[in-house]
Amino acid sequence: MTSELNYSIIAVNDLMVFVISVFKQMGCTEVDSKLAAEVLLKSDLRGIDSHGVARLSGYIRLWEKGRINTKPNIKVLRDKTSTATLDGDAGLGLVVAPRAMEMAIEKAKTCGSGWVAVSNSNHFGIAGYHAMKALAYNMIGHAMTNASPLVAPTFSKERMLGTNPICYAIPAGKCGPVVIDMATSAAANGKLEISQRKNQSLPLGWIQTDDGIETRNPHGLKEGGSLLPLGSNRMMGSHKGYGLSAMVDIISGVLSGANFGPWVPPFVSFLEVQPNLPGKGLGHFLGAMEIDGFCDVEDFKSRMDRWIERFKISIPIDAANPVIIPGEPEAEFEKERIISGIPLIIDVVNDLKKVAIHFNLDHPF
Amino acid sequence: MTSELNYSIIAVNDLMVFVISVFKQMGCTEVDSKLAAEVLLKSDLRGIDSHGVARLSGYIRLWEKGRINTKPNIKVLRDKTSTATLDGDAGLGLVVAPRAMEMAIEKAKTCGSGWVAVSNSNHFGIAGYHAMKALAYNMIGHAMTNASPLVAPTFSKERMLGTNPICYAIPAGKCGPVVIDMATSAAANGKLEISQRKNQSLPLGWIQTDDGIETRNPHGLKEGGSLLPLGSNRMMGSHKGYGLSAMVDIISGVLSGANFGPWVPPFVSFLEVQPNLPGKGLGHFLGAMEIDGFCDVEDFKSRMDRWIERFKISIPIDAANPVIIPGEPEAEFEKERIISGIPLIIDVVNDLKKVAIHFNLDHPF
Repeated sequence: MTSELNYSIIAVNDLMVFVISVFKQMGCTEVDSKLAAEVLLKSDLRGIDSHGVARLSGYIRLWEKGRINTKPNIKVLRDKTSTATLDGDAGLGLVVAPRAMEMAIEKAKTCGSGWVAVSNSNHFGIAGYHAMKALAYNMIGHAMTNASPLVAPTFSKERMLGTNPICYAIPAGKCGPVVIDMATSAAANGKLEISQRKNQSLPLGWIQTDDGIETRNPHGLKEGGSLLPLGSNRMMGSHKGYGLSAMVDIISGVLSGANFGPWVPPFVSFLEVQPNLPGKGLGHFLGAMEIDGFCDVEDFKSRMDRWIERFKISIPIDAANPVIIPGEPEAEFEKERIISGIPLIIDVVNDLKKVAIHFNLDHPF
Repeated sequence: MTSELNYSIIAVNDLMVFVISVFKQMGCTEVDSKLAAEVLLKSDLRGIDSHGVARLSGYIRLWEKGRINTKPNIKVLRDKTSTATLDGDAGLGLVVAPRAMEMAIEKAKTCGSGWVAVSNSNHFGIAGYHAMKALAYNMIGHAMTNASPLVAPTFSKERMLGTNPICYAIPAGKCGPVVIDMATSAAANGKLEISQRKNQSLPLGWIQTDDGIETRNPHGLKEGGSLLPLGSNRMMGSHKGYGLSAMVDIISGVLSGANFGPWVPPFVSFLEVQPNLPGKGLGHFLGAMEIDGFCDVEDFKSRMDRWIERFKISIPIDAANPVIIPGEPEAEFEKERIISGIPLIIDVVNDLKKVAIHFNLDHPF
């Protein structure tokens, strides 16, 4: 079933210039175009190939359908000392979420923590970008978002929830930060897309058919099936993955005034927007907690180093596969790709070439 | 392998009176004894039989070892508008955590949210008790704690993390609250204990041997094995369960000044306290967010009702197993058991009888 994929390597700066030019063509300001491109490329840099420029044409498709406002007037709906809610005015999540995170960080500076719910937004790229913004301020960053309804709750065969990611970014000392950035489904949709492109059968436990039977068919999701929550089935704890996903949906969607559950306006092209929406756009939740709000910063960092160093040497089952610190593989990708460039599979390169031709733009492909 | 278990039904009030008398014998004040008993019995009431009076003798064992201070002087180590850290002075987690949650709620009243880290504590019962305290104030409650090192990170065969539970309690309108209360391991230790008592083989994916091989042996954990993180193996997403557990450990343990990872002082009797501890006791993290800090409370509640009602009717795989709203089964247990009493298995009854004899107390068994 497997077939090898071909890659083109594109220099980060060339790709950045191109992506900025695309967002400008969509009507974003210079500042917003740079920000959106930075968020999108952070994903490619960190090795999360599914959430980077591979999604650029998806954003364009939504914009062409009138679902993205590239000149948003972001409004503050509610503002307390440590909490706030923003209306993203249908802007790019790539632009709206960083504004919300800035606000959370400012609040954390004044009172120890800041929490900002966002409605009326769109796909915000990787949660990691937003949460990691807090690190430079010696804060723990937190980001979550609801997303296209693709995941079935435990016992259901209906697509009710998104892959609803959760991210925590935690600073450390001489060791790198710990960054936990995860979909609350057994497998992220991006992983599935890779298997689809390779026409490679899936492990059981990732998806089920529209009859609720676990399947290895890589096209099963588009054929009416659904993703399974983290835990895959009831016995292995899928009710926990479902619970986490529900929590993300409620705090990002219900609390903010956005849509939630099966009403979240889909990013994927094979789903339609539902009628009788209960809210606006999709929702995010961004948070920042100052380390200094709880303990001495230097003491915390040296304790984090001890945590990381101890976990690194926890006894491996197989010496060839040592224990991984969350966020470390992504940090290594970033260090490497910033120098060597970003490998893009041919499907993505062709997709980006089409974008370049469509907008009549110079391109590096 | 299965054998039927026999139960005794004990009236809630009788059990409460007995448990209060035990805590008094341990030297707790009247107020603390009532609080500790209330927290412990909440678990039995909600059907989480593993975390209630079944653990009473465990608390006594720790107290006899000098690891629990029944007259704690809880100290505020740091206090900002929305954040704080407490030193629990080796008190019962059953008493320390409610004080921390009260503080979080008070902070949320003044600035929209409150977050309290706790060091130098002990086992706090079910996370749900603490998070649910926020509901009466129209707040979202959050509780987590680190715990006895029993879980191996992905790729490891070493016990490094606790079952590190996470709870979110979210108010609703005419529907009950949504309460997500879950261990971040594939199966909680309590579930394992039930299989041990029944001598019932485990599903694969719950635990592994000390060689890192998945096993069905219900005694495998005590024989040197480890619990597996939620997701069970790398392909099914155990790195996500490990990541969540790491987050709980860091925010509850590293941030608060408590012990963390393999150094968390164990509650289970088959593990010893480690040398060269990096902190004090174990750690919790309690939080509260005012709904009014984000949106109109009544509007939120009616949106939550819509969420709950929609999820309840999501298409089931099998009509006999409808989709469950997190927290609903526990609420039903509570409604029933408050009237009909609490069923205790004979092992637990015998254990409690021994306690009664040890302290020369009247008992209802």
